[in-house]
Amino acid sequence: ELQLNLEQIEKGGYEHFMLKEIFEQPNAIKDTYRGRLLSKEAIIKMAGVEDNMKMFLNANRIIIVACGTSWHAGLVAEYIFEDLARIPVEVEYASEFRYRNPVINKNDIVIAISQSGETADTLAAIKLAKSQGAFVFGVCNVVGSSIARETNAGAYTHAGPEIGVASTKAFTTQITVLTLIALRLARAKGTMSSSDFRRHLIELEMIPDKVTQALKSDSYVKTVAEIYKDAKNFLYLGRGYNFPVALEGALKLKEISYIHAEGYPAAEMKHGPIALIDENMPIVVIATNKGHYEKIVSNIEEIKARKGKIIGIVTKGDKSVKKLADHVIEVPETIESLTPLLTTIPLQLLSYYIAVMLDKNVDQPRNLAKSVTVE
Amino acid sequence: ELQLNLEQIEKGGYEHFMLKEIFEQPNAIKDTYRGRLLSKEAIIKMAGVEDNMKMFLNANRIIIVACGTSWHAGLVAEYIFEDLARIPVEVEYASEFRYRNPVINKNDIVIAISQSGETADTLAAIKLAKSQGAFVFGVCNVVGSSIARETNAGAYTHAGPEIGVASTKAFTTQITVLTLIALRLARAKGTMSSSDFRRHLIELEMIPDKVTQALKSDSYVKTVAEIYKDAKNFLYLGRGYNFPVALEGALKLKEISYIHAEGYPAAEMKHGPIALIDENMPIVVIATNKGHYEKIVSNIEEIKARKGKIIGIVTKGDKSVKKLADHVIEVPETIESLTPLLTTIPLQLLSYYIAVMLDKNVDQPRNLAKSVTVE
Repeated sequence: ELQLNLEQIEKGGYEHFMLKEIFEQPNAIKDTYRGRLLSKEAIIKMAGVEDNMKMFLNANRIIIVACGTSWHAGLVAEYIFEDLARIPVEVEYASEFRYRNPVINKNDIVIAISQSGETADTLAAIKLAKSQGAFVFGVCNVVGSSIARETNAGAYTHAGPEIGVASTKAFTTQITVLTLIALRLARAKGTMSSSDFRRHLIELEMIPDKVTQALKSDSYVKTVAEIYKDAKNFLYLGRGYNFPVALEGALKLKEISYIHAEGYPAAEMKHGPIALIDENMPIVVIATNKGHYEKIVSNIEEIKARKGKIIGIVTKGDKSVKKLADHVIEVPETIESLTPLLTTIPLQLLSYYIAVMLDKNVDQPRNLAKSVTVE
Repeated sequence: ELQLNLEQIEKGGYEHFMLKEIFEQPNAIKDTYRGRLLSKEAIIKMAGVEDNMKMFLNANRIIIVACGTSWHAGLVAEYIFEDLARIPVEVEYASEFRYRNPVINKNDIVIAISQSGETADTLAAIKLAKSQGAFVFGVCNVVGSSIARETNAGAYTHAGPEIGVASTKAFTTQITVLTLIALRLARAKGTMSSSDFRRHLIELEMIPDKVTQALKSDSYVKTVAEIYKDAKNFLYLGRGYNFPVALEGALKLKEISYIHAEGYPAAEMKHGPIALIDENMPIVVIATNKGHYEKIVSNIEEIKARKGKIIGIVTKGDKSVKKLADHVIEVPETIESLTPLLTTIPLQLLSYYIAVMLDKNVDQPRNLAKSVTVE
């Protein structure tokens, strides 16, 4: 009884931890860049990066190792690092990396991402990389965790405790930290002009408010959830920066609603998955106005020709997708590299409401543990 | 009428092109290494590689670009090249690579894989890589195709014409060519001892006969197909070299039976997909005796604890998986890097029989084209 009451207090008026954590994201992102992003001075300050700047500047390659949602954050980071800082990035499942005799060269930097800092496979991957002489940088949420202690340097996300098993604010704060690192390196390497750098800082500072706006889709997302909650399968499609967001959106739905959802880079659809599409298949398509908008509109046309049901995640004011899609959910406009921080919000809400409507245990889904400390 | 008769003659007694092409694999693989693999002399002869040996030996990184099944062959190649020749490999969806401002450095080699040699996204990726000064090597099946002409050098697969839209013999012959290249480079770089090299050549030469043996599972696979043909979802799991085979097995089922099947590296299951598992979910697990056998046995135990139905692809004589799985399909033993050439066989047959039983148009599945010449 007392336990229950304590839990209710901890949930701060929300029905589930997951929903609370989804709504905490504006603050979690702000807490993560606070003291690091100084937009007036046009500076990014991160001790873990500054102290090892020579190492980062000499890096031939960054290898990101992670599992689950953190692996998706790593995929977003691949686009960010290559695009902004022009460093080649390879993203690996920690469980595969640790057992596959990977090539690790002297100037490779390994970045390990884990909310809990205790993920067994990621920890083992770090030990392997260190034993081969690599410099390992950690991105964790839990201070003093095993991964934080095992890495050579690192940067914490400041998401606060995440209780819901399905990760939400950990994902967006991981992307925030990785964006800060990429921007800092871009500036140091001179791959970005100072005006472009400033513009990125200003846009990043506006993200918490934009997440708050994106969260206002809440009740509309609930309506959409009601319509599709009984679907047996979903596809999630995105391109570029939003391809990993599609994977993450699908994972959320799998985790808590037990609906089989799969993410794909939109253009791969015609190499197989499009065969699945008929009038029973809802397809979530991330189609913001930056980055291949016309390409994704044409992907949407292909899906409509096969009678699939489209839920589009679009930029506020969108016109083309609105004409084609069965439903559109709007997010505010931002620069392309920051769109994942906004597009992921309605996908989190969608999976949450579907799971609640299906009467699933949202915060503790079957078969899953919050922190995977066994391999 | 005449057309139909011609088609029947072309099918050589098989009900569908796909089945004919599955059964052609022993010869297709043999045709692909014939004249290139000289096991008595312990030599691999490939003009496209020899003529550019300096380029390959100086390569800092190999970037593989492809789509669909060819992308899966690229993922297998990543394991082969890194493991045997110790060259870092990055595998990219051609459709993503071409639009994402990728980092391409002077000593990077790009390998483009495409059965038809006409895949629009892959062709565009090649043009982008060339414009940035990269050396591009093609692996195609169709002689004189656009990709064959557009690349700086290459090696053909000798699979013969592939008519079935779902690719089968193209996949195994692509792996054969990529294995030959990796072995040649391993020898040139000295990352492999001469005895180990010889052993690989001898084992590769035995693969066609072993594929013939693997094809004998045909009627048993049919029995398994009959049991699971009405399942709405499938998972396919593998580790290491067989993780991409799991992806490819799932793609085959999607393409021709329209059943939603998804592949995963087995250890990622506990980061989400395991929530999907209940007594209605068939899970195909590739569990050959080389490479993490005990790890995969423990993954199988986790699935059984959640009442999932296991179809295990195992090495002949297997004992542990047999005790746990609902069904096991045996393939002959070989060295780890060559297992994909065998484990993929029963997965092709499984998708084929399920599609036939569901009365689908196996050779021309809905919504799909054999060669994707539009983006």
